[in-house]
Amino acid sequence: MDKQTYDRLTEQIKFILEIDKEKNIKRQTYLTGYTRQENDAEHAWHMAIMVYLLKEYSNEKIDVAKTMIMCLIHDIVEIDAGDTYAYDEEGKKTQREREEKAADRIFAILPEDQARELRGIFEEFEADDTPEAHFAHSMDNFQPLLLNDFNDGKSWVEHGVSRSQVDGRQKKTEMGSKLIYEKTKEILDRHEEAGHIQHS
Amino acid sequence: MDKQTYDRLTEQIKFILEIDKEKNIKRQTYLTGYTRQENDAEHAWHMAIMVYLLKEYSNEKIDVAKTMIMCLIHDIVEIDAGDTYAYDEEGKKTQREREEKAADRIFAILPEDQARELRGIFEEFEADDTPEAHFAHSMDNFQPLLLNDFNDGKSWVEHGVSRSQVDGRQKKTEMGSKLIYEKTKEILDRHEEAGHIQHS
Repeated sequence: MDKQTYDRLTEQIKFILEIDKEKNIKRQTYLTGYTRQENDAEHAWHMAIMVYLLKEYSNEKIDVAKTMIMCLIHDIVEIDAGDTYAYDEEGKKTQREREEKAADRIFAILPEDQARELRGIFEEFEADDTPEAHFAHSMDNFQPLLLNDFNDGKSWVEHGVSRSQVDGRQKKTEMGSKLIYEKTKEILDRHEEAGHIQHS
Repeated sequence: MDKQTYDRLTEQIKFILEIDKEKNIKRQTYLTGYTRQENDAEHAWHMAIMVYLLKEYSNEKIDVAKTMIMCLIHDIVEIDAGDTYAYDEEGKKTQREREEKAADRIFAILPEDQARELRGIFEEFEADDTPEAHFAHSMDNFQPLLLNDFNDGKSWVEHGVSRSQVDGRQKKTEMGSKLIYEKTKEILDRHEEAGHIQHS
């Protein structure tokens, strides 16, 4: 290969090795069967498969490959910024700033055109105003919800989460898929009734 | 939602929860920094991102979304069949049979049309005679190769792997990408010289 291609591939490989660290970023959600908490890479893998399987329920037509890569990379910034739990109100105050700084460093490892493209996809997810971003957010909510449902609401119980907190977050699901939001409410009603989620 | 949709979504959710078990299937490759062995879900997440980043090096034009979902699901059968190490000659004798049986059970959890579609994509990967399958196999080889390279050839050393064994497997990489195969040979030459891979 020529020198230009060699250098380009070297940058791409450096990025591929850098993002390996995402496998060590722990989330609050437990795997089915409570064995351990899942990590960001596992969460993203699960979400991308869900995009492919559940795309028929998107409110709007989506570019599937783009939505999948959006899901796969959406948490890469947590390599530097750490995972901020959905109901950690203190952590959320500085989350945006920490994640932007991380994005500046990590995406810049790539060749310039790909750095721009992936940073753009990440910012599109954050801005959440395209059909792809809406559906990716639906999956970002629905994936841990399904694990939590399977595990008798374990992480809701552990964090003493209230229904109004959950509802606030789950509102985003509706923008991506009314149908999945309907299922979400059914699941939440059941856990509120069982006392896994506090009334509020 | 109507009853038909409700039942369909119920089957899809059952499959989504079933494949969560893939996060517990350990591979022989270590994460960068040797912290621990990676699992199938992490490996698949990494491969799918690599498809998107390295697609320009595919020998033939590929359907990106299809190649990504192929990578994401290609190891699902290992939930029942377990991981068979690339150089485990005994295990490889029964691998095909064990994996077909697993595919029969796991994909059948999905609604019939999706069971057929995903089983088809899995079989296409196994048959390895389309551009998408060729490139997915390149990623299936190149991803652990990069981790192993970073980790001073740790899993080659642990298993006393020889150059002819590695070359046999890496031949598949060339069918997907001549350029990535060129890089592969450069990496293997270096590790053979360092004694991490045995001459043969």
